[in-house]
Amino acid sequence: MRIKISKEDLLAGVGPIQAVVETKRSLPILSHLLLEASSTRISVFGTDLDIGVRKRLPGEVLKEGSIALSARKLYEIVRELPPAEVELTSDADMTVNIRCGKSDFRMKGLPRDDFPSMRDAKGRGVVLDRRMFRDMIRRTLFAVSSDQTRYTLNGILLRVTPKDIRTVATDGHRLAVATTEADVLKDNAPIEAIIPRKAAAETLKLLRDEPGEVEIELAENHLLFSTDQTLIDARLIEGQFPNYEQVIPATTTKQASVSREALVAGLRRTSTIIGDRVVHTTLELKPGSLRLSCVNLDLGEAREQLEAEYHHEETAIGFNARYILDFLGAVESEQITIHFQDPLSPALFRPKDEKGYLCVIMPMRL
Amino acid sequence: MRIKISKEDLLAGVGPIQAVVETKRSLPILSHLLLEASSTRISVFGTDLDIGVRKRLPGEVLKEGSIALSARKLYEIVRELPPAEVELTSDADMTVNIRCGKSDFRMKGLPRDDFPSMRDAKGRGVVLDRRMFRDMIRRTLFAVSSDQTRYTLNGILLRVTPKDIRTVATDGHRLAVATTEADVLKDNAPIEAIIPRKAAAETLKLLRDEPGEVEIELAENHLLFSTDQTLIDARLIEGQFPNYEQVIPATTTKQASVSREALVAGLRRTSTIIGDRVVHTTLELKPGSLRLSCVNLDLGEAREQLEAEYHHEETAIGFNARYILDFLGAVESEQITIHFQDPLSPALFRPKDEKGYLCVIMPMRL
Repeated sequence: MRIKISKEDLLAGVGPIQAVVETKRSLPILSHLLLEASSTRISVFGTDLDIGVRKRLPGEVLKEGSIALSARKLYEIVRELPPAEVELTSDADMTVNIRCGKSDFRMKGLPRDDFPSMRDAKGRGVVLDRRMFRDMIRRTLFAVSSDQTRYTLNGILLRVTPKDIRTVATDGHRLAVATTEADVLKDNAPIEAIIPRKAAAETLKLLRDEPGEVEIELAENHLLFSTDQTLIDARLIEGQFPNYEQVIPATTTKQASVSREALVAGLRRTSTIIGDRVVHTTLELKPGSLRLSCVNLDLGEAREQLEAEYHHEETAIGFNARYILDFLGAVESEQITIHFQDPLSPALFRPKDEKGYLCVIMPMRL
Repeated sequence: MRIKISKEDLLAGVGPIQAVVETKRSLPILSHLLLEASSTRISVFGTDLDIGVRKRLPGEVLKEGSIALSARKLYEIVRELPPAEVELTSDADMTVNIRCGKSDFRMKGLPRDDFPSMRDAKGRGVVLDRRMFRDMIRRTLFAVSSDQTRYTLNGILLRVTPKDIRTVATDGHRLAVATTEADVLKDNAPIEAIIPRKAAAETLKLLRDEPGEVEIELAENHLLFSTDQTLIDARLIEGQFPNYEQVIPATTTKQASVSREALVAGLRRTSTIIGDRVVHTTLELKPGSLRLSCVNLDLGEAREQLEAEYHHEETAIGFNARYILDFLGAVESEQITIHFQDPLSPALFRPKDEKGYLCVIMPMRL
């Protein structure tokens, strides 16, 4: 194999993929990434067996071929190269020579035969707006459970029907649901798949915040995400996602509306008094105001007064502030609304004037 | 106690001092910092018993008094406060009320009697230019030994004579010496003191990179550093710093001169091939050129060619690249010079055209 490629292009390929590669696996080949040069393209591929990523790179192919190289070492080397053209040549005994400016590296590689294979996309999937899809991942990822024993909750449910696209995640204490109304299925079968947390997080990073599309294709128990340059192959979590819809409160008689920014600042401030234990933050609503307070028996207490639009009787509800902050970090609207029935029932948090997103948070007993 | 102070001023005092305070000590009072308000000043003081720091803060004293507060908690709270005036009030049962905008904190404190006392500077010390002194600390700190059994090497030697000011550090593999010729002693006795690594590092941070002076005063086995706003009290390392002067090679017949920037880039690049083990980097000098090379038996090798001014016979010397990079990170000159006798004798690294700084680095056997 012999290719010429700019340092920047090589780094843009190797960087994100080395982040996916598992370095702690017992199989040495899995700490490698595969460089391939064919007549039509240069590509770099890495996998941890749960998620595989292939990126197509620009560059000139002088001789076809392939080689697997230590992902971390290649990344460290490429990162330090001067901003110039890189010439990468592999010889028959699986040694690669990397030349760039006055730098010259020789690096031992492994043959591609040892490398796990990767699916190809068939190009017949569901096409989504990339930014919209990123947002839907971002708005649910934080609610994924890290409790290994509840493995169907260790990922994001992606559901695509003729009516809408939906992502859902829950850890039993809170539930996040993002919905976009659109029929993107066309001739495709509906999709219902649980994307593991790591695959969802890496997909979020790999699908950069750029306009464009992403194509989603179900292949056995894998989901393929493809863009012009990147193919992500995520092994899905098998099993049934719980019936989350019954958790969303159907009737809530009380509603408060408050500035998102002020609530973020207030919760961050009152949370400073909390130590390492989980302590509830009390939200006291009165007509016109929301008072936040937090008590740490060892240390002291914190209070903050906010303006709020609220027209019902005085109520106090306790929440884990972290859960509210996660929700607030996922929305952009200036105002958010809190819908609730009583201090013991799940409360509904929503961006004001936006229908497609909600978070259900279980209160804590005061 | 009752004071009014801007959030920024309070943070500028609490932030650097909470970094000094030891949180893992068994004595709870040591995880606190002491706030004091007298008719003439507001000050904040923290100590880990090895280094104590007091900063004077601007602000308005409404009622004199003092209280000790958890350093980390106070820092976390102040950091999150809105940019406004803070009113801090302590009552008789050692509870502090912190008010700022619509935020309101109550925090339990401890009486000042429990707090270790701090020396006051007598104002009769040696006065140094602050930037010059910072540079002298910075240029030697990296060479301080972390070998706990060689405790006199666990700090920087500060020596002030009628002739010059000097800082020295060594870990047995390399030695860094910074010298400034000046008579700053006046009526003072010469100083010879070993400043522990943490005190030196904190002093570097606390003496911000601003023009001005710092006064240095020896008090028993402590050294006091004072500026207008800050007093640092460092307990010194007792014992005799080794005779480092005999390590500085007196005669070196060969000399090479090379661009600092090119050498940094070349060493960083060739070092990428090194794994976790310490591997030497070979410096091969020929008239006109310096070739860097590094071999990792498991992985491969890296080479880099640099231009160099060199007029002697071909020589190859092995070094720990980290040590050379530490030296290069401490100098600003465009060119550096390497003086040496043979591949087994200590080599001398210097910024070109600057007399006051040198680094001796022991070679590694090739």
